[in-house]
Amino acid sequence: MDNDLEALDALFAPGDDTLRGDANGILIGHDTISAFRQGRGGAPKRSILDVHVREIDDDNALVIAVTQPATGGRGQQTQLWHRADRGWVVRAAHVSVPAPATNGAIWRVVGSPLVTGAASGTLKGATVAVKDLYEVKGFAVGAGVPAYLAESPIASGTATAVQQLLDAGASVQGIAQTDEFAYSVAGRNVHYGTPPNGAVPGAIPGGSSSGPASAVATGQATIGLGTDTGGSIRVPASFQGLWGLRTTHGAVSRSGLLPLAPSFDTVGWLTRDADALSRAAAVTLDIEAQEAVTPDYVYSPALLELCTPSVRAVFRVDAEPVDLGDLDELFEAFRMTQAVEAWQSDGEWVTAHPGALGDDIAARFAFARGITEAQGLAAAAAFGAARARLDDILGERVLLLPSASAAAPSTTASTEHLEAFRMSTLRLTCIAGLTGRPGLSVPAYVTPDGPVGLCLVGPRYSDLALIELGRELIG
Amino acid sequence: MDNDLEALDALFAPGDDTLRGDANGILIGHDTISAFRQGRGGAPKRSILDVHVREIDDDNALVIAVTQPATGGRGQQTQLWHRADRGWVVRAAHVSVPAPATNGAIWRVVGSPLVTGAASGTLKGATVAVKDLYEVKGFAVGAGVPAYLAESPIASGTATAVQQLLDAGASVQGIAQTDEFAYSVAGRNVHYGTPPNGAVPGAIPGGSSSGPASAVATGQATIGLGTDTGGSIRVPASFQGLWGLRTTHGAVSRSGLLPLAPSFDTVGWLTRDADALSRAAAVTLDIEAQEAVTPDYVYSPALLELCTPSVRAVFRVDAEPVDLGDLDELFEAFRMTQAVEAWQSDGEWVTAHPGALGDDIAARFAFARGITEAQGLAAAAAFGAARARLDDILGERVLLLPSASAAAPSTTASTEHLEAFRMSTLRLTCIAGLTGRPGLSVPAYVTPDGPVGLCLVGPRYSDLALIELGRELIG
Repeated sequence: MDNDLEALDALFAPGDDTLRGDANGILIGHDTISAFRQGRGGAPKRSILDVHVREIDDDNALVIAVTQPATGGRGQQTQLWHRADRGWVVRAAHVSVPAPATNGAIWRVVGSPLVTGAASGTLKGATVAVKDLYEVKGFAVGAGVPAYLAESPIASGTATAVQQLLDAGASVQGIAQTDEFAYSVAGRNVHYGTPPNGAVPGAIPGGSSSGPASAVATGQATIGLGTDTGGSIRVPASFQGLWGLRTTHGAVSRSGLLPLAPSFDTVGWLTRDADALSRAAAVTLDIEAQEAVTPDYVYSPALLELCTPSVRAVFRVDAEPVDLGDLDELFEAFRMTQAVEAWQSDGEWVTAHPGALGDDIAARFAFARGITEAQGLAAAAAFGAARARLDDILGERVLLLPSASAAAPSTTASTEHLEAFRMSTLRLTCIAGLTGRPGLSVPAYVTPDGPVGLCLVGPRYSDLALIELGRELIG
Repeated sequence: MDNDLEALDALFAPGDDTLRGDANGILIGHDTISAFRQGRGGAPKRSILDVHVREIDDDNALVIAVTQPATGGRGQQTQLWHRADRGWVVRAAHVSVPAPATNGAIWRVVGSPLVTGAASGTLKGATVAVKDLYEVKGFAVGAGVPAYLAESPIASGTATAVQQLLDAGASVQGIAQTDEFAYSVAGRNVHYGTPPNGAVPGAIPGGSSSGPASAVATGQATIGLGTDTGGSIRVPASFQGLWGLRTTHGAVSRSGLLPLAPSFDTVGWLTRDADALSRAAAVTLDIEAQEAVTPDYVYSPALLELCTPSVRAVFRVDAEPVDLGDLDELFEAFRMTQAVEAWQSDGEWVTAHPGALGDDIAARFAFARGITEAQGLAAAAAFGAARARLDDILGERVLLLPSASAAAPSTTASTEHLEAFRMSTLRLTCIAGLTGRPGLSVPAYVTPDGPVGLCLVGPRYSDLALIELGRELIG
C-alpha cells in the first residue's frame, strides 16, 4: 500500500511464469511486471475494505480483496499466493480498478448517445465515434488541439458524412480524439494522452484516427468515422486488427470536415467486421458512381522491402509482382504536396499560436512552413507525374500491400523509432493518396508483435467492391 | 460460452464459500451467484483469445483466460478450479469486462472535461457532475426525461450554482442523470437505467440526484452538484456513504435551475469527504449571511420509530429527545404543497406528453393533478403552520436523525416496498423542507444492509457551521 516498488517486486514470484492481468491485458513474467510498475510510477493509493481467503492447501491460497481507491469507487484484487522457500509470494494477480467517467484519451465528448439517429435504417443500433475534425451541430471542432478548440465556433450544422450515418439509423456516441490537426500516423496526443491499442496492450493505437479506432477496438463504438490523408485510417486499422476503408478521393462529401491536405483528404470508417463497414459505406457512397472490380492482384516487392521482417514473414498473397518505379520520388511528391497544403490549411493558426502544439507536430509544420514557392511548384508537378505513372502501371488491377510497415510500436518507443516507422509506412500508404484510389485495410495477419492489415488499393470508385474482395481474401 | 445457465451453475462449486467478483462487487455463495446469472439473462457472447493455466497441485489449478466479447474489446476471467468428487468445479472467479464509452445511467453527456473551470481557485483539480436540471451553456436541460430533452432549448448561459464552482477552478466533468423531473428519492430512471450504488452492489443509488451521487461514489467526479426538494441529496448520500448538504432554502441562487417545488427546492452537493464539501459550500454560499451554531442537539424518538430495526440499531446520538408533534400532519403539509407546486412547474408539459413518463412518476403527477384548489389552499395553510411550529420547537438547536429510514433497497425491490420506504423517509426529510433549514448527511453509520447517514438539521444559514459539527461528530 505504501507503493514500495522494491517490496512489491519481492512479493511477486520470480521467473517467467508469474502473471498480472488488468483491463489493459496480461503481463507475463516477474521482470515484465516489475518494469510495468516502474513505468506507471506506482499504484494509486487505496485501502482494503474486505478480504476473502480461500485456502487451497498448506502452501497455496487464493486471496480476494475489495479495495477502495483514495479517488473513490471500488476495486478488486485476486491473488494466488504460494509459500516458497523465502516466504509467501504471488504467482498470479488479477486487478480491477474503477472505470473513469470516460477515457479522455479516446473521447473528447461522449453522450448516451450524444446525437440520436433516425428511428430506422440499416445502421439502426450502431454507435459512431466521430473524429474531432467533423462538425457536429452544437459542438465545436477541436482537431486534437485544446488551444484550437478554445477558439473554435460551435457548429451550426452537422458534416454530411456524419449526417448520412445518422439518417441511416446510427447514433453518434461521441466526438473522438485525433492526432493534432490529423498530421501524424502514430496516434499520440500530448494534450489528451495516447488512446489504448485495443489489440496490443502497451502499444500505440495508430493515427490520426486514433480515438475512433480505439473506441471501436475496445467495444465503445460500432463505427469509427475517420479521415485518411496519408494512412490515418489504414494504419490504426492495421495496428488494432480492424477493418478500415479510405474511400476514393472525392467520392464522399467533405462538407463540414476540417481539411489537412485537400488533394489527399478522404472520409472513411473503421469497424470490427466487414458487415458494419459495408453498411456504413453503402449509406454514404453514391452507389451509381461505384465500379465493379476483378480480382486481378499485383504486389510490389520493393514496398515489401520497407517492412519489418515479421511483417514480411506473414504477408502472403497470390499476386503478380509489379514495379512502381522510384518509391522515394513518389514519397517526396506526396510528402511535399501534403506539407504545402497542410500549411495552407493550418499555417496561419499555427503561426499565431506558438507553443500550442506538441514537439513532433510542431516540427512537421515548421518543415511545411520552410517550403519555398519553387519547391511547392516542383512538388505539384511531381504529384501529377506520379499519379499518371501509377495509374498507368496499376490500371484496373488491385495492389496488395501491408497496411503499415510494422505492427504497432510500443508507447515507449523513441521519437527516432517512430520517425523511421513513419517514413517507411508513408511510402506504402502514399500510393492510394497519390492516385486518389480507395484503400481497404483487412485484418488478415497477426505477427508476434501484433496484428497487421492487408491493404487492397483498387481502381477509383471500387470502394464497395473492394470490401467484397477483402471478405473473400480472408474468408 | 453457450450461456447454458444450468451448466454454468453446475460448474460453480456448491456451498456458501464460492466467490464471483467483478467491477460491481463480490457475490458470495453458489446460489447468490446463480440468482445473479438468472437476473442478467446470461453473459454476453464472447470467445477465448488466450488461456494461461497455473497448476497448483493435482486437484487445484488457476486458469486465467483473455476473452473477446462479440461487442468488441477484451475481457479477463481468473478462475480457481478444484477437482471435486463429481469433477472439476470453480471455487472462485474474478471477471473483467471492457468499460463502456461511458455509463449512460450515470451520465447524459461527459467530456474530458465538458467545461473547463478557472485556471486557479480552491476547487482547482476538482471535477463536477452536474445534475441534469441545471443549465450548462451549449447544452439543453433534460431533467431525466428524453421527450423533454428533445424539445428543450440549448442553454445560452450557465446556472449560477454551476458557474460558481467553475469560477473556483473546478471543471464540469459532465451532465449527470436524475429521476424524472427530480420527483423521487429512489434513483431509478426507466429511460436511462438505474445508476449503480457505489457502496452497495445491487442496491438502488437513491435520488433524485442519482447520477451526481453515483458519479462521486464510483470515483468519476469529485463533487456532485444536486438539488434537494424532499431529500434528493440526503437520501443518495445516505445510501452511498457520501457527505451531502442540502443548503438553507434561498441561500444559493437557483438561477438557471429547473424548478420542481420552489417552496422547497434547494441547491446542494455530494462529496466523498468533508473537505471537498466544505470548499464547494464556501465558494457558493454568501459567507456574510452564514450563522454560527452551537452543538445543542435534539432527536425525535417518533421519527426513529419510522426507521428499520437495523437503522435504529446503529443510530446513536448524544442528544435530548424532542416532540415534533403530529408527523403525519407535517408530512401531508409537505407532500400536498410539493405536489401542487410540481404540477405548476411541470403539469402543462406532462399533460401535453402522455406516455412520456415512467409509471411511478406518472402516478405521482396524476395525484398532483387531482388536487383541488381548496385542498391546495389548505396545504398552504398547513405548511405555514408546520413551519411556525417546527421553528418554535427547534429554535437554534440542531436536530439529529437518520438521513433515510433504511439502507438502500435492492434494485429488485417491489414497487410496494419502495413506496413504503418513500413514505417513511419523506417523513424524516420533510422537516428540513418545511422549515427551509439546511440538512447535512454525514456518512456516520454502516448497517448490515449498507451505509446510513446521520442527518444534521440546523438553523437557517448554519450550512457551513453544520459541516464543522458533522466533522466533529464522526471525528
